[in-house]
Amino acid sequence: MKKIQAEILAIGDELLFGQTLDTNSHWISGELDKVGIKVIRRTTIGDREEEILTAFAEAEARADIVLITGGLGPTSDDLTKPCLATYFNCNMVMFEDALRDITEFFARRGKELTELNRLQAELPECCTAVRNTIGTAPGMWFDRNNKVFVSMPGVPYEMKKMMNDTVIPRLLEKYQTPVIHHQIIKTVGIGESFLADKISSWEKSLPPHIKLAYLPSLGEVKLRLTAFGQSRDALEKEIATWVDKLKPLAVNYIYTYGEQSLEEVIGQLLRDKKLTLSIAESCTGGYLSHLITSIPGSSDYFLGSMIPYAYEIKMRQLGVKPETLEKYGAVSEPTIIEMANIVRAKFNTDIGVATSGIAGPGGATPDKPVGTVWIAYSDKHQTITKKLQLTQDRALNIRLSAVAVLNLIRLSVVG
Amino acid sequence: MKKIQAEILAIGDELLFGQTLDTNSHWISGELDKVGIKVIRRTTIGDREEEILTAFAEAEARADIVLITGGLGPTSDDLTKPCLATYFNCNMVMFEDALRDITEFFARRGKELTELNRLQAELPECCTAVRNTIGTAPGMWFDRNNKVFVSMPGVPYEMKKMMNDTVIPRLLEKYQTPVIHHQIIKTVGIGESFLADKISSWEKSLPPHIKLAYLPSLGEVKLRLTAFGQSRDALEKEIATWVDKLKPLAVNYIYTYGEQSLEEVIGQLLRDKKLTLSIAESCTGGYLSHLITSIPGSSDYFLGSMIPYAYEIKMRQLGVKPETLEKYGAVSEPTIIEMANIVRAKFNTDIGVATSGIAGPGGATPDKPVGTVWIAYSDKHQTITKKLQLTQDRALNIRLSAVAVLNLIRLSVVG
Repeated sequence: MKKIQAEILAIGDELLFGQTLDTNSHWISGELDKVGIKVIRRTTIGDREEEILTAFAEAEARADIVLITGGLGPTSDDLTKPCLATYFNCNMVMFEDALRDITEFFARRGKELTELNRLQAELPECCTAVRNTIGTAPGMWFDRNNKVFVSMPGVPYEMKKMMNDTVIPRLLEKYQTPVIHHQIIKTVGIGESFLADKISSWEKSLPPHIKLAYLPSLGEVKLRLTAFGQSRDALEKEIATWVDKLKPLAVNYIYTYGEQSLEEVIGQLLRDKKLTLSIAESCTGGYLSHLITSIPGSSDYFLGSMIPYAYEIKMRQLGVKPETLEKYGAVSEPTIIEMANIVRAKFNTDIGVATSGIAGPGGATPDKPVGTVWIAYSDKHQTITKKLQLTQDRALNIRLSAVAVLNLIRLSVVG
Repeated sequence: MKKIQAEILAIGDELLFGQTLDTNSHWISGELDKVGIKVIRRTTIGDREEEILTAFAEAEARADIVLITGGLGPTSDDLTKPCLATYFNCNMVMFEDALRDITEFFARRGKELTELNRLQAELPECCTAVRNTIGTAPGMWFDRNNKVFVSMPGVPYEMKKMMNDTVIPRLLEKYQTPVIHHQIIKTVGIGESFLADKISSWEKSLPPHIKLAYLPSLGEVKLRLTAFGQSRDALEKEIATWVDKLKPLAVNYIYTYGEQSLEEVIGQLLRDKKLTLSIAESCTGGYLSHLITSIPGSSDYFLGSMIPYAYEIKMRQLGVKPETLEKYGAVSEPTIIEMANIVRAKFNTDIGVATSGIAGPGGATPDKPVGTVWIAYSDKHQTITKKLQLTQDRALNIRLSAVAVLNLIRLSVVG
């Protein structure tokens, strides 16, 4: 079977000048890889017609598929659309379906369509529009000489929705791709190299047509097994056998075998067990509650939080005893225990969790350096505390503390 | 003056397959831009000899400078160095200074040099070595026909040290670069196309050597003016004149003339005016507090939050009157006014803000569709409310609501 090859083209001066980090090309690379389409090159160019047209021709000469992001805004510095019209040699016409989407997009915001935005529904006649229901720039799909060009907006969430809803399904209809089966295994609470040590003999015994990738992110390590073959059924069965062998090696760390986030898995656990949650978060400053409430339907199990950021608020609003705070300080085991217990009692929930720490860069003392964080979990049976010694980086400390609390909830509720 | 043009080439299968996010090319882009070297293209290719050699030739044909990252590891899948030897047609020889650096690097770690690592000091005879004191792969500088190729490791901190210590200074010695001046203008509270409408006559009157870019993100639009010329002083003065002309056209929307975030600007405003802030956030679920507390030193002005997610918590913990909730519902102007006033009084702060809305996808009623959000600002002089009609997307509604509150604080405090 011929391997289908793709190139990714990111267009925008702001990328070349180092003002905007291009995360789109990276994300697209990963999505194409998952469906067995091979990315052979990624190119970033600026907003200049000649360079854009040259890049189109070069990419077409090498690849079957050219995926383009950026340069679709309504303003005059956005050149992707006119360049595509020139390249495919066809006129601009109004696409009524696209105009309806844009009009509705503005109507939902209670705003009138401007002329500039109306013109975004004008597309080259020879393309098929790719719907954009969450933004104003439609995508475009061109098919000529069995080569496909797709143009998408540079706004990441618009591009991602277009890829998932339309582009990937259409590419899989058009091209015969090899059978690939992916299995995700998500872990939390263990670093990449420690995990690699634990599973090294298993990894070494994998056959050549099954590949393992480590995909670490902040506080988590995702494993991805990729199997190549002829039959989906056979691959699925084979992968399942390998996953069964992996389980006992990493049982405390694996939290899902899919793409669900940790906060999603915890939401499902709490809903299934009919448990409610409240939070008293200090050093995480709202981020932990934000993770929990980012999940649709979280109001089923999450009742609310206190963020007692200041010392007085910890005392007067939350109700931590002044003598505890005075004797042990805000970042201490006695304080974190009170915080978790009090919020659970006050908000009348099954579970209360709490964070208190030195996120940095300021606030450190000789015995409590930046990165010192206490977390606690409380339910009617038990109160569990944990002291973390994290990093010098504020954002990272906030993220890692929140993930540690989520993991504490997971381990406690799973039991 | 001839414009000096550069290309950036990132080499590595892990980039193309979406496993490693390439941040090097972005960082290099920014550094070259600062010194007036124009990046005209960035390319990412895999670890295959033929593709690497082709990419070298293509880049050399277009640019004066080709900066390469990646593919310098000691293992056989790293091909950048042999490809450079082939491309520049010269033999590999041992570079004694590089060997000394590598030997010392291992000695500092108490490790012995392996044969694989010793070979990293073998470089093409026709290059100059670029020192690497914090890693094992030396960089390489090639100069032929007045075109420069520089090869650097893919490890970001090694590459950055090489760029700062050696590559940028040598490039500035070799090339005469133009003066470039950038001016950022960040706006909030107005969409890209509406802003473009408001400033279109100003934009059209800009001279050809000053370019305007629109860089929209969720809830904000960043403008960037870029001026090219001979004298930094003259450019700075000229840009300042244009910014002065822009101000009256967008006065309510501009919040900074630098790279600061909105939450940073608000933090500075509150600190300067010695004002304190508390938050009662329902539909934003902690995200607004998270933005505020992501800024180092935010404990100077932010005292704390309540997240009364459930109806009962709004009533019993925050203290919204039951009759208000019963009569108007949680997503209503009377409720949001109480929320902002109560949190301000309870937490004893100068300012209280609040959010309550239907983030979605669930929770809508016929008169309150998904995306209906009330926000409020309260201080001792005034209470301001605003009703937003946002999108169908939960994450976007949370983000846009939080930005709208930040903007409300900004407008109220600036006065």
